[in-house]
Amino acid sequence: MDALIAKAEVLLEALPYMQRFAGRTIVVKYGGSAMLDEELKLGFAQDIVLLKSLGLHPVIVHGGGPQIGKALERVGIETRFERGMRVTDDATMEIVEMVLGGQINKGIVANIERHGGNAVGISGKDGNLINASKLLIDGVDVGRVGKVEKVNPDVIERLREAGFVPVVAPIGDDETGHSFNINADVVASEVAQALGAAKLILLTDVPGILDRDAVLQPFLTIEDCRQQVEAGAIEGGMVPKVECACDALEGGVGQVHIIDGRVSHAVLLEIFTKTGVGTEVVRDPQDEDQDDEQDDEQAEAD
Amino acid sequence: MDALIAKAEVLLEALPYMQRFAGRTIVVKYGGSAMLDEELKLGFAQDIVLLKSLGLHPVIVHGGGPQIGKALERVGIETRFERGMRVTDDATMEIVEMVLGGQINKGIVANIERHGGNAVGISGKDGNLINASKLLIDGVDVGRVGKVEKVNPDVIERLREAGFVPVVAPIGDDETGHSFNINADVVASEVAQALGAAKLILLTDVPGILDRDAVLQPFLTIEDCRQQVEAGAIEGGMVPKVECACDALEGGVGQVHIIDGRVSHAVLLEIFTKTGVGTEVVRDPQDEDQDDEQDDEQAEAD
Amino acid sequence: MDALIAKAEVLLEALPYMQRFAGRTIVVKYGGSAMLDEELKLGFAQDIVLLKSLGLHPVIVHGGGPQIGKALERVGIETRFERGMRVTDDATMEIVEMVLGGQINKGIVANIERHGGNAVGISGKDGNLINASKLLIDGVDVGRVGKVEKVNPDVIERLREAGFVPVVAPIGDDETGHSFNINADVVASEVAQALGAAKLILLTDVPGILDRDAVLQPFLTIEDCRQQVEAGAIEGGMVPKVECACDALEGGVGQVHIIDGRVSHAVLLEIFTKTGVGTEVVRDPQDEDQDDEQDDEQAEAD
Amino acid sequence: MDALIAKAEVLLEALPYMQRFAGRTIVVKYGGSAMLDEELKLGFAQDIVLLKSLGLHPVIVHGGGPQIGKALERVGIETRFERGMRVTDDATMEIVEMVLGGQINKGIVANIERHGGNAVGISGKDGNLINASKLLIDGVDVGRVGKVEKVNPDVIERLREAGFVPVVAPIGDDETGHSFNINADVVASEVAQALGAAKLILLTDVPGILDRDAVLQPFLTIEDCRQQVEAGAIEGGMVPKVECACDALEGGVGQVHIIDGRVSHAVLLEIFTKTGVGTEVVRDPQDEDQDDEQDDEQAEAD
Amino acid sequence: MDALIAKAEVLLEALPYMQRFAGRTIVVKYGGSAMLDEELKLGFAQDIVLLKSLGLHPVIVHGGGPQIGKALERVGIETRFERGMRVTDDATMEIVEMVLGGQINKGIVANIERHGGNAVGISGKDGNLINASKLLIDGVDVGRVGKVEKVNPDVIERLREAGFVPVVAPIGDDETGHSFNINADVVASEVAQALGAAKLILLTDVPGILDRDAVLQPFLTIEDCRQQVEAGAIEGGMVPKVECACDALEGGVGQVHIIDGRVSHAVLLEIFTKTGVGTEVVRDPQDEDQDDEQDDEQAEAD
Amino acid sequence: MDALIAKAEVLLEALPYMQRFAGRTIVVKYGGSAMLDEELKLGFAQDIVLLKSLGLHPVIVHGGGPQIGKALERVGIETRFERGMRVTDDATMEIVEMVLGGQINKGIVANIERHGGNAVGISGKDGNLINASKLLIDGVDVGRVGKVEKVNPDVIERLREAGFVPVVAPIGDDETGHSFNINADVVASEVAQALGAAKLILLTDVPGILDRDAVLQPFLTIEDCRQQVEAGAIEGGMVPKVECACDALEGGVGQVHIIDGRVSHAVLLEIFTKTGVGTEVVRDPQDEDQDDEQDDEQAEAD
Repeated sequence: MDALIAKAEVLLEALPYMQRFAGRTIVVKYGGSAMLDEELKLGFAQDIVLLKSLGLHPVIVHGGGPQIGKALERVGIETRFERGMRVTDDATMEIVEMVLGGQINKGIVANIERHGGNAVGISGKDGNLINASKLLIDGVDVGRVGKVEKVNPDVIERLREAGFVPVVAPIGDDETGHSFNINADVVASEVAQALGAAKLILLTDVPGILDRDAVLQPFLTIEDCRQQVEAGAIEGGMVPKVECACDALEGGVGQVHIIDGRVSHAVLLEIFTKTGVGTEVVRDPQDEDQDDEQDDEQAEAD
Repeated sequence: MDALIAKAEVLLEALPYMQRFAGRTIVVKYGGSAMLDEELKLGFAQDIVLLKSLGLHPVIVHGGGPQIGKALERVGIETRFERGMRVTDDATMEIVEMVLGGQINKGIVANIERHGGNAVGISGKDGNLINASKLLIDGVDVGRVGKVEKVNPDVIERLREAGFVPVVAPIGDDETGHSFNINADVVASEVAQALGAAKLILLTDVPGILDRDAVLQPFLTIEDCRQQVEAGAIEGGMVPKVECACDALEGGVGQVHIIDGRVSHAVLLEIFTKTGVGTEVVRDPQDEDQDDEQDDEQAEAD
Repeated sequence: MDALIAKAEVLLEALPYMQRFAGRTIVVKYGGSAMLDEELKLGFAQDIVLLKSLGLHPVIVHGGGPQIGKALERVGIETRFERGMRVTDDATMEIVEMVLGGQINKGIVANIERHGGNAVGISGKDGNLINASKLLIDGVDVGRVGKVEKVNPDVIERLREAGFVPVVAPIGDDETGHSFNINADVVASEVAQALGAAKLILLTDVPGILDRDAVLQPFLTIEDCRQQVEAGAIEGGMVPKVECACDALEGGVGQVHIIDGRVSHAVLLEIFTKTGVGTEVVRDPQDEDQDDEQDDEQAEAD
Repeated sequence: MDALIAKAEVLLEALPYMQRFAGRTIVVKYGGSAMLDEELKLGFAQDIVLLKSLGLHPVIVHGGGPQIGKALERVGIETRFERGMRVTDDATMEIVEMVLGGQINKGIVANIERHGGNAVGISGKDGNLINASKLLIDGVDVGRVGKVEKVNPDVIERLREAGFVPVVAPIGDDETGHSFNINADVVASEVAQALGAAKLILLTDVPGILDRDAVLQPFLTIEDCRQQVEAGAIEGGMVPKVECACDALEGGVGQVHIIDGRVSHAVLLEIFTKTGVGTEVVRDPQDEDQDDEQDDEQAEAD
Repeated sequence: MDALIAKAEVLLEALPYMQRFAGRTIVVKYGGSAMLDEELKLGFAQDIVLLKSLGLHPVIVHGGGPQIGKALERVGIETRFERGMRVTDDATMEIVEMVLGGQINKGIVANIERHGGNAVGISGKDGNLINASKLLIDGVDVGRVGKVEKVNPDVIERLREAGFVPVVAPIGDDETGHSFNINADVVASEVAQALGAAKLILLTDVPGILDRDAVLQPFLTIEDCRQQVEAGAIEGGMVPKVECACDALEGGVGQVHIIDGRVSHAVLLEIFTKTGVGTEVVRDPQDEDQDDEQDDEQAEAD
Repeated sequence: MDALIAKAEVLLEALPYMQRFAGRTIVVKYGGSAMLDEELKLGFAQDIVLLKSLGLHPVIVHGGGPQIGKALERVGIETRFERGMRVTDDATMEIVEMVLGGQINKGIVANIERHGGNAVGISGKDGNLINASKLLIDGVDVGRVGKVEKVNPDVIERLREAGFVPVVAPIGDDETGHSFNINADVVASEVAQALGAAKLILLTDVPGILDRDAVLQPFLTIEDCRQQVEAGAIEGGMVPKVECACDALEGGVGQVHIIDGRVSHAVLLEIFTKTGVGTEVVRDPQDEDQDDEQDDEQAEAD
């Protein structure tokens, strides 16, 4: 009987979040272990199907670094890196597009469909979703690496309303039809902004944003983030993620979370429980206490 | 972390039921302890609000025996019972109508609204919901005790679609405007049939239908029920409930459950977990195994 | 043949009013003789059904003073009055709610339905219609006597659009679920304002607002009303009615009439004929002559 | 006060007819005195505007014999009659079309609009409304006199739904674009059938169908009509009218009335009062007593 | 094969214009040779049907000078002209209305329908389309010659949306029901403005606006037009046409063309090819080069 | 001027086809030279954009044989052919999916978008479009080569209605998520059937179906086709195409054409001109002469 009551409590705990997010769009950047480990893949697909069933509108943007590397190796293309970015010539871009759009994207679609969902995979070229242009890294041309010029979210909105889960490969093109590979966190952030998403969730392979003592920081304001980046407390691959998070908030996204994709059902738990699984970046200090008791309780939990 | 995973599992267990019942109508006969005990009242209100939030359409039909008795006592009307039915003269009916429609009905509405829902209380006279006629008990006239002639569910459907939880007092009238008090189980069953409800749940103050050894029978076919009633294995107040259940199934209601209203969140658990809390009456033996894994697993659980 | 032509003239006289009020909401405060006398009750029901048939949206708010008194007497509760208000303790309130919500409200519904209409009776607790708080009478606490804090007209609008005539009992509650008995004229005025009603009609047991020579004053401006109240020319029970009328006009209601409910079909005649049956309170002097020839002609008639 | 009550009674008498015909189409054949006498023209326009205001959908089909004769005279075309039909050569037809479509039709439109309605005048050529072919009178070719091959009521339905009163000139054409003049009673009957009209009203210059003693026959069955035509009791211009009436009933029109257009507001009175103004042709004897109390009372009136 | 490619090129040339004008309204003033010559009539009907098929919304306003003259002659009415305007007494107006509304209008409708279209002919009296008043010519009263006071385009919009081609006779009336004959160019310009038309095309019997050397001027700004009128370079019947064109542009019509109705399919070619068939009046000089390559190429062609 | 008239004639010739196919779905199998030659690619994109602009709904299914071969070569996978089919092991399938779904599909999308259209590329895995199973070739397992089990056209219909041109890669999967490469002609035929397409056009690199004297056969009945296949007159790669054509017709597709993709704008010309560019397969002999004058004239042309 206690087990029954505990079950009821979980459902009741989830209730206010179901209400708050019903009909709202949640953009999830999907990548890392959650895209490679079979059990985590299963959990992710179940979570996405559950969200859609409950009337939320998940939109997935995926990356694909490791798979691209493997494919390039296989065809014998050697990659040169410049300031951490893969220098992407036309031959490389051809492979990138095939791997992201033909292999990974359709694999995610199939995974969701196998668990009862109905997904449609597109790239940023479909429906003019992403207009891109060349990204110079500190003034250096690294080839077909792009930045987002404009998001035209019409195709996502149509698929979303028609009951499909849109799955987006992070490729865009310019007016001449040249394709660009774009960082998936950036695409997720830009798409979330264009859709006016209620939430952006970035799945990572770390517990969240840690402080210098490696302790998880459950809340950081945009201000905190920028100070810690400047101070070097946030470094490496987390820096661009934090920038995407701050951009999204400033661009009107409701909430942004950097969470641990290695936890089973991380997406579900982030959305439907009071104690989340990572770091929430918030607009300003009051946000923590204010209109969201989730924040308070999570803060207390630490 | 295990606690998190357990939470995710509860949510995932509920998923197929959320999907199956989204947009469907669930009629709940509300009465007994669940309507008197403060904690159970709270749980009931939370359950109903949760169901509505998830896109199900709960419709409540309530009784009110004990409160009616108290009110009659207070105004000094003595009640005579005939074959277990309160003989209801016009003066008594006036009190019955005031208690059911003015006190209990509005109390349930207020309880649901206090917990975030939006309910509207009506009687069977509103919107021509229930056309009634006199019920003779074994040929005996017990006054203003009625049976249902016709249910016109339009008012419920409109309230339901408009986002309200309809709460129905079991009173009907005939074309001349005479009111009748009708058994609430009967009203619940008839309303469920008229609405084409997916589920009818009768809240009782027993664990369900017990066998002669007082062991809960998780499944009974209509055939079983009728045999056990004839054999006297089902007796007393359970007999009319079982008849309502069988009528509902034969009238097109998807599933019928007689459950223990003394269990906290009994309604929620019945709907969203594999192991229910009472007896399901099923159309025929195959139903147990067939299109509903809930049945199988509950059977296994015993 | 002359009789035929006279019939045609009545229909044609009504035409501009049918056009003007089609699709508009008319709030009627129903009480007094019109709610007690059988012939007047019949006429009232016919009028309401006719209005609805013609595409107007009547909304009824009813009182119930005499019936409440009788019921209290019957259960042996003695009433103390304080500054003309019934001191309403919790036991009294329980009876009030039962009488208003369970007896009178459903009686009006049944009366309308018996004459071909389709009504739904609710109290201010249903659909969160009326949020109330305690009303202090000159600083004196008279118990569960309330004032309107907020009207949420959604439930009325939904019922109205679905083809039902909403019938409202003047009870509200606060967030803790405490019920309050509220003056029905006040509820009618507040509901009319919240609905943006085209017309508010207050049925009384007098011919309208009389001057010191007991002559009916067919038109009074808000200014006139306030002067006559101050001067004592309007006194007694008419004072709060006049205040409700003025509030309604200032709150955006199109027209307000205080009419004689003892005239058969008073509501119908007020709406569909050039010469009304009582006093119209108007925003300012010009209103009399301006966009409404009804005004002119009635003025001439005197 | 009695006058007031009488007014209320007229409105209440009209109520069931307003309800029955709301949203329904009423086809009126307009001609004779009602189209020539200024007072009757005014009354007709008022009636049509009132019907439209009340949510009925009047559709007018007009004739124009006298005006056509005058116009032909004016241009010096002599008319030969063959079996009561004007022999219509091409030159004559040109004038017919100009008079019916350019003069009479637009005059009716203007009359309705001057009284607050919104009408649109069309001929059977507009929107492919009437496909016609040559009508041989007892095998004799009388030129451009046509019969209806097919009614395509789309244009009327669109105008009707858009809030306009359609006014139809009785002209049709064939696929080669040849115009034909068609009897207006026939067009009214065919249009009523194509629209599934609730009522067809033929305005005439007689009190209705009289018996041999010149007494009005308030009801005639189709059978009666045919017998009286055969027996010569119905003769002259009434014969084709009676045929149109019978055709309409057999073609699904709800009710057909042949009424006296010389009575002011004849259309209004026919529709909204218990005692009509002419003869109703009914499908069979039972129709008189059955679902229409108007019938009974009119029968009694005689 | 070359012929095939040429065909494809024509279709492709038309594409951008199909896209630009899809769902837009094109008002065509129809008159002159295009309304008299059988081959041109055929071509015009085909063009209109094609436009409607492609999702454009053509609206036709027609004149009728020559036919009116002939009809007046026939009935023996002598016409006096005053400053180029026919003095229109009541008898004349009666004929004008019959010819325009009963003959010409229905003839155009029949022509369009014979070629697969679906047209509805109305005058400015239908649906209160055109409210008119007397036009004084240099202060002289020439009878029932009117100017447009107000266009209420509702009836056109409804017919247009319902799939019909509206055909408008240039007659209006005032509130007392007096009819006025109005210049068809003026009606076309006013209707185009009221509809927010994308294009107004005036069919004439000249190649367009010529300069003093009788060379077609493919583009003229409003400014140019006014200077040339003042300078007498534009004279005669072209002056009022040019004024209508300028009014239309200033009243919000997208483009205005004065074209040669003697060219087969002139309307089609104006809309769907780069090189038009007449003069386009443009708001200001830049318009020629700007957002419309049609302009440039036509300019080059000369 | 003659050139203008010729232009008008082309537009008018196209008119009946525009009308017939407006709102209808046209499935085009795209492949061969038309997908490789830059000029033909341009023409194809223009044609598709034009069709969509005109309100037709083109759906593209593409192949990709040559490109797959090149990609396999590049990664060093050697292909074995068995009865003309590429034996497709898992490694090969991975490449196939990447090339079809990631490279070719997105290239077609980009080509259409560059010319003003709005396309979305999907594979048969998206939206559960194509459920596939293993295809045995004469009982021989050639790996991941599939046949269509079921087409669920929902995703195409949604994209189509939302204004996008769906572009489909011929890949399907089974319930376990295994992908299969399917013949693109077969996918086009099955998709056309599932969509109830008005037309299926198969682009080839031959003029159509030739007879033994290499003369184009403009019409063949299903019966003709089957006889010529049996007789060996149709052979090689044309055999399965002809089977797809016959299947499509028998499955309800309106018309099926096998045309020469090497002709510029072949799709446009096939749809909008009387003389097509290839062979039409028709249900039975009468079809040639009957409801399609295109047939007659093409027949005459030979």
